[in-house]
Amino acid sequence: MDVGAGRVYRRTMQAPIEFYFDFSSPYGYLASTRIDAIAARFGRETVWRPILLGAVFKVTGGRPLPTLPLKGDYATRDTARFARLWGVPFRLPSKFPIATQAPARASYWATDRDATLGRRLAGALYHAYFAEDLDIGSPEETAAVAASLGLDRAETLAAVHDPGIKERLRHETDSALARGVFGSPFMIVDGEPFWGADRLDQLERWLSTGGW
Amino acid sequence: MDVGAGRVYRRTMQAPIEFYFDFSSPYGYLASTRIDAIAARFGRETVWRPILLGAVFKVTGGRPLPTLPLKGDYATRDTARFARLWGVPFRLPSKFPIATQAPARASYWATDRDATLGRRLAGALYHAYFAEDLDIGSPEETAAVAASLGLDRAETLAAVHDPGIKERLRHETDSALARGVFGSPFMIVDGEPFWGADRLDQLERWLSTGGW
Repeated sequence: MDVGAGRVYRRTMQAPIEFYFDFSSPYGYLASTRIDAIAARFGRETVWRPILLGAVFKVTGGRPLPTLPLKGDYATRDTARFARLWGVPFRLPSKFPIATQAPARASYWATDRDATLGRRLAGALYHAYFAEDLDIGSPEETAAVAASLGLDRAETLAAVHDPGIKERLRHETDSALARGVFGSPFMIVDGEPFWGADRLDQLERWLSTGGW
Repeated sequence: MDVGAGRVYRRTMQAPIEFYFDFSSPYGYLASTRIDAIAARFGRETVWRPILLGAVFKVTGGRPLPTLPLKGDYATRDTARFARLWGVPFRLPSKFPIATQAPARASYWATDRDATLGRRLAGALYHAYFAEDLDIGSPEETAAVAASLGLDRAETLAAVHDPGIKERLRHETDSALARGVFGSPFMIVDGEPFWGADRLDQLERWLSTGGW
């Protein structure tokens, strides 16, 4: 009898932290600079899932920050203040918000090749937009960022226009909605939802305590 | 010559922390349990300013949490989780949200008599609603809470219906809007705005550092 032997190889894998975000979300960018380090402190992986907040807003009635009276102005101040506090390079992009199909699709394409590469690309795209003011809504700009990581520019452009990857992004956005995701960033840890860069402290405490 | 002598008596008074809130706001309730202690650590006073978020929302297009798809459900979970983390008694009231003219007017009336009493009454009203599930939207319930602090029940009821105090609440709400207040809680420290119970940590850091 060797019934238990398999267990040696069956490791108790902890579920990854799911990180939903839109590439046009400044709070998503802020969270993106910390989520992997937080996860790593607890031996967790992250799964980065870019979504289209515009499609989410059609269901929830949400609206982009700059269109919101008073709240839009506050968010401009708050995001810059948050970034200074965290020491994260940040400036509100000249064009804001933007449609984010190109960076989102490129990220899924890169992730399917190599999850680590996908996260690196997503991080580089966020940095390009919120620190360097590059319009990553443009497929060419997204491809240029990908090229800076060694990815092929033409392949990246092809991925951005690939019907299968377009469908993938629609599916990820629909799945996010089905799971209750209504904003960016939105993190799920062992089924527990956390919305906002300002919930990373509670998320970290959740990881360290197992919840309360 | 005695030019400098006056300075001995001219104390550098630090401005109070202004605390805007609506009595129907669970995040406002959470913040109300901490704002005075935070202020006290830095030798500051607080000024509690109840407002009518419904009037604010007419200008901003905002809507009450329970009416927001997905976000409403999340807020229910998040407020309860927040309260457990902070050790604050909390349950979502049976009737939520409510119109908050009665507790807001009673608070201004009490504050005009004695600022400390006004803060105590506001705290007791918040506790009655979010910890004891009492409908403070009712003038009678608000007067009962006031009576528990030794205020005269009939005088409190009269204050709730007093034209001057009604106008005062309208004025405070309009002034809040003019200062950029769009939600609850909303704190202003030396001109710097902080929105949300989840900004109390940054507010405290602002007080300790003088800003960044």
